[in-house]
Amino acid sequence: MFKRVCIIGCGLIGSSIARGIKKNKLATKVVSSNRSNSTNKKVIRLKIVDEASSDTKKMVRGSDLIIIASPLSSYKNIIFKIKGSLKKGAILTDVGSVKKNVISLIEKNIPKNISWISSHPIAGTEDSGPESGFSQLFKNKWCILTPGKQSNNKDIKLLEKFWKKLGSRVDVMDAKQHDYILSITSHMPHLIAYNIVNTALKIKKKKDRNIVKYSAGGLRDFTRIAASNPVMWRDIFIQNRKNTSKIIDKFIKNLKDLKKAIKNKNEKKLEKIFTKTKKIRKEIIEAGQDISRPDFGRK
Amino acid sequence: MFKRVCIIGCGLIGSSIARGIKKNKLATKVVSSNRSNSTNKKVIRLKIVDEASSDTKKMVRGSDLIIIASPLSSYKNIIFKIKGSLKKGAILTDVGSVKKNVISLIEKNIPKNISWISSHPIAGTEDSGPESGFSQLFKNKWCILTPGKQSNNKDIKLLEKFWKKLGSRVDVMDAKQHDYILSITSHMPHLIAYNIVNTALKIKKKKDRNIVKYSAGGLRDFTRIAASNPVMWRDIFIQNRKNTSKIIDKFIKNLKDLKKAIKNKNEKKLEKIFTKTKKIRKEIIEAGQDISRPDFGRK
Repeated sequence: MFKRVCIIGCGLIGSSIARGIKKNKLATKVVSSNRSNSTNKKVIRLKIVDEASSDTKKMVRGSDLIIIASPLSSYKNIIFKIKGSLKKGAILTDVGSVKKNVISLIEKNIPKNISWISSHPIAGTEDSGPESGFSQLFKNKWCILTPGKQSNNKDIKLLEKFWKKLGSRVDVMDAKQHDYILSITSHMPHLIAYNIVNTALKIKKKKDRNIVKYSAGGLRDFTRIAASNPVMWRDIFIQNRKNTSKIIDKFIKNLKDLKKAIKNKNEKKLEKIFTKTKKIRKEIIEAGQDISRPDFGRK
Repeated sequence: MFKRVCIIGCGLIGSSIARGIKKNKLATKVVSSNRSNSTNKKVIRLKIVDEASSDTKKMVRGSDLIIIASPLSSYKNIIFKIKGSLKKGAILTDVGSVKKNVISLIEKNIPKNISWISSHPIAGTEDSGPESGFSQLFKNKWCILTPGKQSNNKDIKLLEKFWKKLGSRVDVMDAKQHDYILSITSHMPHLIAYNIVNTALKIKKKKDRNIVKYSAGGLRDFTRIAASNPVMWRDIFIQNRKNTSKIIDKFIKNLKDLKKAIKNKNEKKLEKIFTKTKKIRKEIIEAGQDISRPDFGRK
């Protein structure tokens, strides 16, 4: 499918892509560039890629697919570094969770003969680093493509095929819509999870070790997401700050409504809301986006 | 251990206790009382209990352990119904998630010769009903006992032994402390989960079906808890409204701080908070309160 694929940033997502490429024989050669030498050594030792170096230009050179899989705040440096080394006609993509700003940043800075098509595989775990990746990470998960202005249809189809070979289902969407929807389905939930654990943590610090002990009452569910990569999520919230702020305001408004209903012992209202929210889980399971076993199948 | 155990309300928790009693041979006979005849028939057909009837007095009569396992709002009716039928020296317990109000309600209304010792097994799934229960539900989970004023030490030890035989670890705590800690580890997380799904749902209703489709980005984690029993949780929030309100206020304050940090692009502050919250997950796993596999071991 490709001769040489270069993955910039071989963390959970990047290393899962590399593993998927090898498993499905989607490229003759997979190379990677990471800032730290120990990561470059690790991804070679673990046989995740064929070659790795902190010399990003060298790794990019001659690649027909380049995938940026590092935190959003690193894009600017990377683009300035690689823009002179991109092979004519190559496809450039990323795996970032926010689109609007980075798409125009990259569009402005790369040669016209490069197909810049942004990708967002909606998949991940709370773990970070190349040792956490696995080739099945994208199986049945959605991947959203957001083509840039200068990308041609043939390349979009090729990248779509690539993600499908990794197990993904593919949708095409513009940047604005993407950033809005993901603020609801992903960015708000993560921010809320961070906040709930942070709130519990502040209390724990003051006086109570029991918060860990009795976390099976509900808190533990939130700690999974709140264990996600701090730098990655810091960047996502800052990049999508307008949408995130709006949805946080809605969240607070609804929470105050709930608080009022509790204070007024409004049984009817509470029961009605909690019955509605029960239904959406069924829809999510039917859409294949979560498993049906109770308690996430924990054992 | 007991001759006759009566479980009032054979839902997820009640039926799991009944199954555990049978599996571990903790009683000669297990009976149950449920409001609906179809539930009474079901628990007999599924061989969860030996006898079941909507005649609560009849079921309670002669029992040496009575367990109230129905929503908190039903306690008042139940107590008035059964108080004349309790066997002298019997142990009365419950499995409710809020203690302060119900403990004094029951204390005021039962004969002096009854040992009223409130229990709270911190265990459950998002499913409801007798068919969802299983005998291993309490394994390694904490059960908090809150003895009433007139319960004697011998009976507290016996009830403690009972929960341990069901697989629980047991702690003894007063009502005030219980209600405060659980508002942090359980009631707030549930309310937040309901609110996040409700917020997403309101947006979905307006214009977007994509919210289910892309829920694997984080939202799906919250839908599990937001699928819990609506009546049970309505009662919990109302009964523990003072603690819940206070912790919600703290939550909102912290969320506004986070929003501000995002608006000001305060990278340092965000990264610091998100790094701290990552640590608590490790502590929870080490305390045996969640599994260590990424993504809850979803497959």
